Amino acid sequence: MSATPPAYDLDPLFRPRTVAVIGASDNPGKLGYHVMKSLTQGGFQGDILPVNAKGGRMMGLSAFPSVEDCPLRIDLGIVVVPAAAVPSVLEQCIRKRVGGLVLISAGFKEIDDPAGARQQEALQAMAVANRIPVIGPNTFGMINLHHGLNASFTPEFSLAGKGGIALVSQSGGMSHLLAFLAMNQGIGFSKIIGLGNRLNLDFAEIVFYLTADPDTRVIALYIEGLDDPRPLLEAAESVRGKKPILVYKTGAASKSDQASMSHTGSLAGRHEIYSGAFRQAGVLTVDGSQAMLDLGKALGVCPRPGGRRIAILTGQAGPGMAACDACEVNGLEIARFSPETQSAVDRLLPPLAMRTNPVDMGPAWYDSGAIQGIMRAVLEDEAVDGIILLMMYASANREVVPVLSGLLNEWRQRKPLVSCLVSPAGIWDEAVEELEAGRAVANYPTPERAAEAMAGLWRYACLSNTEWRAM
Amino acid sequence: MSATPPAYDLDPLFRPRTVAVIGASDNPGKLGYHVMKSLTQGGFQGDILPVNAKGGRMMGLSAFPSVEDCPLRIDLGIVVVPAAAVPSVLEQCIRKRVGGLVLISAGFKEIDDPAGARQQEALQAMAVANRIPVIGPNTFGMINLHHGLNASFTPEFSLAGKGGIALVSQSGGMSHLLAFLAMNQGIGFSKIIGLGNRLNLDFAEIVFYLTADPDTRVIALYIEGLDDPRPLLEAAESVRGKKPILVYKTGAASKSDQASMSHTGSLAGRHEIYSGAFRQAGVLTVDGSQAMLDLGKALGVCPRPGGRRIAILTGQAGPGMAACDACEVNGLEIARFSPETQSAVDRLLPPLAMRTNPVDMGPAWYDSGAIQGIMRAVLEDEAVDGIILLMMYASANREVVPVLSGLLNEWRQRKPLVSCLVSPAGIWDEAVEELEAGRAVANYPTPERAAEAMAGLWRYACLSNTEWRAM
Repeated sequence: MSATPPAYDLDPLFRPRTVAVIGASDNPGKLGYHVMKSLTQGGFQGDILPVNAKGGRMMGLSAFPSVEDCPLRIDLGIVVVPAAAVPSVLEQCIRKRVGGLVLISAGFKEIDDPAGARQQEALQAMAVANRIPVIGPNTFGMINLHHGLNASFTPEFSLAGKGGIALVSQSGGMSHLLAFLAMNQGIGFSKIIGLGNRLNLDFAEIVFYLTADPDTRVIALYIEGLDDPRPLLEAAESVRGKKPILVYKTGAASKSDQASMSHTGSLAGRHEIYSGAFRQAGVLTVDGSQAMLDLGKALGVCPRPGGRRIAILTGQAGPGMAACDACEVNGLEIARFSPETQSAVDRLLPPLAMRTNPVDMGPAWYDSGAIQGIMRAVLEDEAVDGIILLMMYASANREVVPVLSGLLNEWRQRKPLVSCLVSPAGIWDEAVEELEAGRAVANYPTPERAAEAMAGLWRYACLSNTEWRAM
Repeated sequence: MSATPPAYDLDPLFRPRTVAVIGASDNPGKLGYHVMKSLTQGGFQGDILPVNAKGGRMMGLSAFPSVEDCPLRIDLGIVVVPAAAVPSVLEQCIRKRVGGLVLISAGFKEIDDPAGARQQEALQAMAVANRIPVIGPNTFGMINLHHGLNASFTPEFSLAGKGGIALVSQSGGMSHLLAFLAMNQGIGFSKIIGLGNRLNLDFAEIVFYLTADPDTRVIALYIEGLDDPRPLLEAAESVRGKKPILVYKTGAASKSDQASMSHTGSLAGRHEIYSGAFRQAGVLTVDGSQAMLDLGKALGVCPRPGGRRIAILTGQAGPGMAACDACEVNGLEIARFSPETQSAVDRLLPPLAMRTNPVDMGPAWYDSGAIQGIMRAVLEDEAVDGIILLMMYASANREVVPVLSGLLNEWRQRKPLVSCLVSPAGIWDEAVEELEAGRAVANYPTPERAAEAMAGLWRYACLSNTEWRAM
């Protein structure tokens, strides 16, 4: 399959120097107030131009009565006026040659009244004819964290960390959820994009743009339904192997309407078709919001495993067994060490430990040389494709994580290394954050999630390697 | 099935007034130091007697040279001496009529050397003959949070919240993991018990004790393998319907030894037998560490659903669809509202919303009367057995959670109510914590986990109702 090159220049939209808020307000009961707050408090370094027909001042800035009255060239216009006023605002933005729009206003295709759909079609024709890219309508907005741009009605999105995941979502609620979850998990985003009703920017256009975006390492899509999945599948196929694309799709068995209950079979069937088509196009699917973040993090941090043979190095047997179960359920193999590795482990651990894979390093807690020796032997073992490192804090192993940091940093990016290093707040947090910041490990709060992330890396390695496509 | 009455009085063990630490130390390189720290800094209100043959002072207390030199009656002895010294310590404790022991010392049945197993058998015979209950050997210890008793080598266990879950575990690592995870999730424990090598206290004895324990609402077991599952199954059967018992069992497909790889089939088969036997005895199984905490929390907070018909009330469509999918995958039904409820919802929401189940309350964010009206109609609907409430923070819905609190508290314990109310730190945390403290809702960070918790409540309702056992 080949894909059409992008029709729009999205740089003015995502990396604007000048932003106008059309429908800006100083009334906290209006979305135009919250958008102004997001923009002015989110760290944006360019010019902000509030537009309000009644004039006035907001966030210390004087409003212009219309877009066309603004004295500067406008790269991005954020529109928060009532639906009825949108056509005339769009006309003005076209005349003003605004680079792109985030159209937050709602009341179009999503409402029961067919007039909404008609009005959206008219807007779409106008935007396409005049080649102005529009995110929305009916969206919370868009955030480019690396540009300090919060073009949304939720100022708190600016609290999200900068990172390599671009989230593109058909649901505002899911975007808010994922962003708030990520804040507590050391996961950062390059962009968070609410597609809304997809006037002329749909998943495919955004995927093309993000493939070339240097800030984005992983593209994560939340999808409810697509009128026509082909453009997205073509876009995915054409970027296969360049950047991972993750999809979380809901609607498998859901009934958002009692009327659809009788159609469960066909809905589920369509979901199966989606899954197959995504797999063929090299797209990874996940089955939950947390799984989306977990795998997004691993893909952003870890190199791809060359195979499915995993070593489990654990500070305690129980979590090691939990990881072992989760590996096997998720299609990974527990590696058989090379004889050299096994004899190194046997030499370094007392006879009472679990010394084959999984390796219980518990008896060596006090012996940092032994722990490092085991780690190094396993890292160097060509029979091992990836490593899961597990350690639960206890009084006697407090120093293990700092001691391992040097070795882990030395090996970063040579083999995938996921971990579950867990302590009460304030003990290992900082050391683990440093390891993650240095992309030495991707850390998870449970052994099962660590194993699932490793399994996702392996699934991606299979999908993205076209030679392996038959698998 | 009937079960033998408990052979031991465990109150001196779990609720001691006087505790001796045999092998207490002032050297931070020794476990005896950390046990002293746990006990003295964990809030214990009774007498603490360090015992060390060399005497000395530790944590401000003078050590006695032996147990028998202690001037007080000893309810609980915590033993942290080397394995070789344990038999003589046990003899002394028997002569001193100590009420019970936590035997942290390792080097018995778990080591490769058969001498370890023989020594453990000798200890067991002595403990049984003299009717002294022993937790361990080879355990991190035990914590009774409602008694301020941290009889473990990890002082940080005292940071865990007081709550209704008793955790009984065959793995120290898993106990540490679950306790640290719970600390960040507002989940508290009544007791955390590391069974170790199970000298004469095994799962069955502990389950009997916890069934009568007023601080314990839910019994959560982490199991790796049982020599003989029958005593536990009999204990579970005899307490069926009184308190929920949750089991997380690993070892389904795991290979802790390369030698066992050829036996995978039989291992997996045994796991299936376990699952069936647990179900028959009314025991709920879960498939992960986080799932154990999630369901434990729901069972501690929520009443049992009378059926599987669930209402999903959401502030945003996307998370509602995710919950919907997760409900159906996990055996729940999306309720069909009564005509009265449906007409109330239709009256209170504009036509553009999802108004059947799931209900998108988004358009009513600004109208707290409408939100409350919908909630009340659904709570009162006899066609609804349980409610999942979802709301992601956005600028415009900041007040929704506080507004709903009154209604949720009014309905507490009448129908199960799980929620996913998520905001950036510092916005809704306090309101949600209050709701959970009042047992009005069990809150989860994702819609999927909320739905899975509700599904677990329904599974428990089925299992615990003996009339439904055939299901």
